[in-house]
Amino acid sequence: MQPRIAVTMGDPAGIGPELCLRVLADIHVLRTAIPLVIGDHGVLAQVAEQCQLPWTAQLIDSQDEAVELPVGPAVWHVGGLPREGWRPGATGAVTGRASYRYIETAIELALQGRVQGVTTGPIQKQALQQAGIEFPGHTEIFASKTQSDRVCMMLTSPAITCSLVTTHIGLREVAEKLTTESILQTIELTHESLAQWRGRPPSLCVCGLNPHAGEVAQFGMGEEERVIAPAVQQAKSLGILVEGPVPPDTAFIPARRERTDAYICMYHDQGLIPLKALAFDSAVNVTLGLPIVRTSVDHGTALDIAWQGQADGSSMIAAVKLAAKIASGTK
Amino acid sequence: MQPRIAVTMGDPAGIGPELCLRVLADIHVLRTAIPLVIGDHGVLAQVAEQCQLPWTAQLIDSQDEAVELPVGPAVWHVGGLPREGWRPGATGAVTGRASYRYIETAIELALQGRVQGVTTGPIQKQALQQAGIEFPGHTEIFASKTQSDRVCMMLTSPAITCSLVTTHIGLREVAEKLTTESILQTIELTHESLAQWRGRPPSLCVCGLNPHAGEVAQFGMGEEERVIAPAVQQAKSLGILVEGPVPPDTAFIPARRERTDAYICMYHDQGLIPLKALAFDSAVNVTLGLPIVRTSVDHGTALDIAWQGQADGSSMIAAVKLAAKIASGTK
Repeated sequence: MQPRIAVTMGDPAGIGPELCLRVLADIHVLRTAIPLVIGDHGVLAQVAEQCQLPWTAQLIDSQDEAVELPVGPAVWHVGGLPREGWRPGATGAVTGRASYRYIETAIELALQGRVQGVTTGPIQKQALQQAGIEFPGHTEIFASKTQSDRVCMMLTSPAITCSLVTTHIGLREVAEKLTTESILQTIELTHESLAQWRGRPPSLCVCGLNPHAGEVAQFGMGEEERVIAPAVQQAKSLGILVEGPVPPDTAFIPARRERTDAYICMYHDQGLIPLKALAFDSAVNVTLGLPIVRTSVDHGTALDIAWQGQADGSSMIAAVKLAAKIASGTK
Repeated sequence: MQPRIAVTMGDPAGIGPELCLRVLADIHVLRTAIPLVIGDHGVLAQVAEQCQLPWTAQLIDSQDEAVELPVGPAVWHVGGLPREGWRPGATGAVTGRASYRYIETAIELALQGRVQGVTTGPIQKQALQQAGIEFPGHTEIFASKTQSDRVCMMLTSPAITCSLVTTHIGLREVAEKLTTESILQTIELTHESLAQWRGRPPSLCVCGLNPHAGEVAQFGMGEEERVIAPAVQQAKSLGILVEGPVPPDTAFIPARRERTDAYICMYHDQGLIPLKALAFDSAVNVTLGLPIVRTSVDHGTALDIAWQGQADGSSMIAAVKLAAKIASGTK
């Protein structure tokens, strides 16, 4: 049987609902996974009508906890989203709270083993905050709810794969937040996951922090020598195939990409800039180190085009397919 | 007549000498420019023999200040580099000092109007320091020697063009160094140059600093709202076609690249990572705001392959051709 993947609807005011409809109707998804959309049935029906998106899915009443999940596309309706007080394209406390409940529900279903993986739709972090939910993003919610203290955000596409040592923090905080331990942990999690998925030890490339990787500590405060190089050395001594720290700007040239399975990036945009420049439509966000499989779209709520039927479902569909692939391999 | 372009040899221990030999023999260069290599004739002859690189160039004796420059490829021999005490692949005070003299000479020739532009070969910044020369890079030397207080480093290629607000400083210093004034200056210099070269007002895109451009000041300290947005507003009020600050990771996706003539980047790797990922071989470094034309290779001394005849001359050749093009347009 194909793995069942919970797909959270994301912020109802964003493009999440129409992405879910595209997932439920996608022939390639249905060949590899049984999608279970976690969201609001009324919103989905309304968006489907407004955007003229054909879809079929069985409706699950989440009140009945013991319900048997169908072996086909389905929607798990989470109640509590009011009809009034919000509108498409404008997120706030109401839609933020709803998007958080979808994530909670999906994590519970995964921990219960009722789904084999979770793919998350786009949320608005500010809306979470307005709802009084203090997590900066999905990854932190998953880490907390599954009590995982060793997680890593990885973005992957056929062209390029990047794991991030730091994620959603200001650029000015990056240098202070980096530790040899956190870099080594990111190397290890990336190595473990890719070795499992690909059936061979992956080749990793660790980026420096400063221009030209500091050029022998001329730029920056020797973070390459003090913090990054020791992590690379320790990883090598564990038998991991890893090189670095390399100058960030030449890390991503074609010749090096060809021989690199994944990059270890010191900060969000060091990895996300080349990833989106090279593989915007096909990149998927994977959280490594969790006891459950979790993938995500690599884009936001795109409020300016929400509920208009224009949103490109490629990344969401790729995310569901990857979750199914990982779930199949690790079951 | 074609513009005469001074081409500095860079650090003698690096790949600069063989790049100069390739420039002197390149048919496309010779169609658009009269190259005048500023360097050491003995080194060039030795590298030519060792790497079996054919070349022809008239030798100029720099002692004779009034010498008439030939209307064909030539080498301006700058004395003072000892034969002994250094070797290919290992830079130091001796080669650093020599590389600095080539730059000084080229700038003098340009200020005298004897050459119409300068293209610089790769130097080793550490070697400059070892020679007691405290400039962090070429750009700063050119700014100082030409008394320009308003300069900007731009990297350009057919695929993507990026101007940098900050350059060779540690990542941890970037946020503090950014000012509305420096960002506005970078926008203005980029606008002025591209408008002149292309004959139409260019479309500019200003990147944010933090992940997701701070996502309404959640990450970072509101640099986007406090520092960057006011510069964009002021530029708009001057009639410049500019948008931003945009999230750095989506700034470089294909759809936006298509409508963007140049990016204004807050730090070195924000611009150099996508540039080298997309256009490694063809990118050229241009200094905007100088009274003279100056372009440069966008790579380093590549000490590991120096004097072996393996160095790719594409970027150096593109740099000379671009200098000639700019010189022709601005003469």
